[in-house]
Amino acid sequence: MRVAILGVGLIGGSIGLAARRPIGDRPAGAEVCGYDLDPRVCEAALELGAIDRQAADIPGAVRDVDVVFAATPVGALPETVRVALAHAGPGAVVTDVGSTKRFVAEAGVADERFIGGHPVAGAETAGVEHARADLFDGATWYLTPARGSTAGVLYERLHRLLTSFGAQPAAIDADTHDRLMASVSHLPHVLANLLVSQAASVLGSEQDQRLPAVGPSFRDATRVAGANTAIWTDIYLSNRDALIVGIDGLTQRLGEVRAALQAGDVAAVSTWNERARADREALLDAGLSGGVGGQAVLELRASVPNRPGVIAELALALGQAGVNIVDMALSPSEDNRQGVVALWVGGEPHATRAQELIADLGFPVARA
Amino acid sequence: MRVAILGVGLIGGSIGLAARRPIGDRPAGAEVCGYDLDPRVCEAALELGAIDRQAADIPGAVRDVDVVFAATPVGALPETVRVALAHAGPGAVVTDVGSTKRFVAEAGVADERFIGGHPVAGAETAGVEHARADLFDGATWYLTPARGSTAGVLYERLHRLLTSFGAQPAAIDADTHDRLMASVSHLPHVLANLLVSQAASVLGSEQDQRLPAVGPSFRDATRVAGANTAIWTDIYLSNRDALIVGIDGLTQRLGEVRAALQAGDVAAVSTWNERARADREALLDAGLSGGVGGQAVLELRASVPNRPGVIAELALALGQAGVNIVDMALSPSEDNRQGVVALWVGGEPHATRAQELIADLGFPVARA
Repeated sequence: MRVAILGVGLIGGSIGLAARRPIGDRPAGAEVCGYDLDPRVCEAALELGAIDRQAADIPGAVRDVDVVFAATPVGALPETVRVALAHAGPGAVVTDVGSTKRFVAEAGVADERFIGGHPVAGAETAGVEHARADLFDGATWYLTPARGSTAGVLYERLHRLLTSFGAQPAAIDADTHDRLMASVSHLPHVLANLLVSQAASVLGSEQDQRLPAVGPSFRDATRVAGANTAIWTDIYLSNRDALIVGIDGLTQRLGEVRAALQAGDVAAVSTWNERARADREALLDAGLSGGVGGQAVLELRASVPNRPGVIAELALALGQAGVNIVDMALSPSEDNRQGVVALWVGGEPHATRAQELIADLGFPVARA
Repeated sequence: MRVAILGVGLIGGSIGLAARRPIGDRPAGAEVCGYDLDPRVCEAALELGAIDRQAADIPGAVRDVDVVFAATPVGALPETVRVALAHAGPGAVVTDVGSTKRFVAEAGVADERFIGGHPVAGAETAGVEHARADLFDGATWYLTPARGSTAGVLYERLHRLLTSFGAQPAAIDADTHDRLMASVSHLPHVLANLLVSQAASVLGSEQDQRLPAVGPSFRDATRVAGANTAIWTDIYLSNRDALIVGIDGLTQRLGEVRAALQAGDVAAVSTWNERARADREALLDAGLSGGVGGQAVLELRASVPNRPGVIAELALALGQAGVNIVDMALSPSEDNRQGVVALWVGGEPHATRAQELIADLGFPVARA
């Protein structure tokens, strides 16, 4: 198996490391050729063992390979895919790793050798120096074959290679993929930006006022505000059609809430909030927000003094009892003297045990 | 000092415990009379030492006292304040603890004995059984005296009492208070509700599709979705004027982003995102989102295996080195095998030290 990787950053480098491992029916590992606009990055990838050799350009990289991964920033993907398709052999499959898919699909639309891809890998660290062979272990890897594609052999080859990385390939059409990502990633980023700017504008006109102690809702909702501009401008624009649909849907929902508030309609506001609760639970049940193997994730809230070591104390007590913390959020009070730790654990028995353990440590704790 | 508390739940009970402590110029502690619609709650407060005696009704509770705290649910506050003012003596000060202020202010608008209040206490646990004498230690306690109020002696008495609780009283006009709370609390809750419902509607039409591994942005933004309906319906409606202003502002900002996306305007999208970044930093500098004593809060992101004990290991290493974790968020991957921990620590030296310590543990870590 010969693989070409165009752009050897975190994702490209991790693909190289994963592909070069000898696994199962590929006892020798794949032979990987890398190309990067920045030759120093290619050198680093070579040193790290993420690629076997480097090419001077895309045509040189894709010559005589079986699988091509385009792993550049989103904005450069369509052109990278176009050049790769122009120079790859008739039996090669060309894929990409972009987080939006219709945008790239258009570059390969007339070519059955192209199958879009999107590994949903949780790494937050960029750069080839953070590449890991196990980055895709257990990760969903979306594939967006064109409708009516007859290139079954290419799809199968790509699928098998991704499975050897430990990934779980899942076919989805590009439109649905992009609408999902707009809902669960791009729109939350947009709202985080809007919330901080709106809060800043309210506070800006009240400079002499004390700032309020901000509760967890604002902190949580604005953590991703102003995320890396180069990356996110690319993402927003590459998925703008789906994002606009999302914005329109949200604007309509905002209007409905506004009307219920304006009318002072207690029943409508209650019903709306209950529906959100039900939707959140449905998403949790579906594993969306951190369900564990079909178990409900239960939330505990504990009040703790805010000093070094207190989180360790708490996490250690749970860890020693075998209770895994699915998710955790810590919100300090304004003066940092105390805080609230929200903990999510999987399943009733673990939640009960966690509650006992935290109470034993002397911290007030309750189900949220 | 004689104090009446109307509604002895978590907040009312904690006020009682704090007021009864002998402190400084109040060596005997205050004498506290409690009233609650639910006599069992009053019994519990008596047993816990949160009140000295219970009254059968509001008139009985407020007779001959110096300070009255109305600490019922928000919806019942205006009526509670009205009855208290009707039966309290001419030298009494009547205050409340509601999280929105204009709504209650209208009940006491013609009476200079009324001064609205809102302790921003971080407790997430409800019920008198979780009441604590130190609940308000270090907390901002907003006070909303009517403009032009001449009741300086009453304000001073209330201010001194709150200071004896360890709280930091801050005068603010009711309008500004409510707009602030709409921006930093109520609107984030509304958006959390809308995001889950919108995601559920997209997913609902794609039942056969695999669910995506959801990144931290969606998890963080929707943690508070469907919060307690009884409490939040009250809060939304009691602050509906300010909340509608917030919704209108947000709708306009959404429209501006939509236009920039529609036009494919790279510069406008970049500028908008950069402004959000600057706004977020300004809020951080202002201590809004967790600044510590004027120090910038720096964010680290580490990739960790998702097993019991790993958070403890990490928190312990930082705690032993004296690095305090200001905030923390853990996002597991879909299959729960690994996760990303976001950590916020105060100041450059601590951030550098934390980064070294985490790297020493063998976890990939980077500045966000």
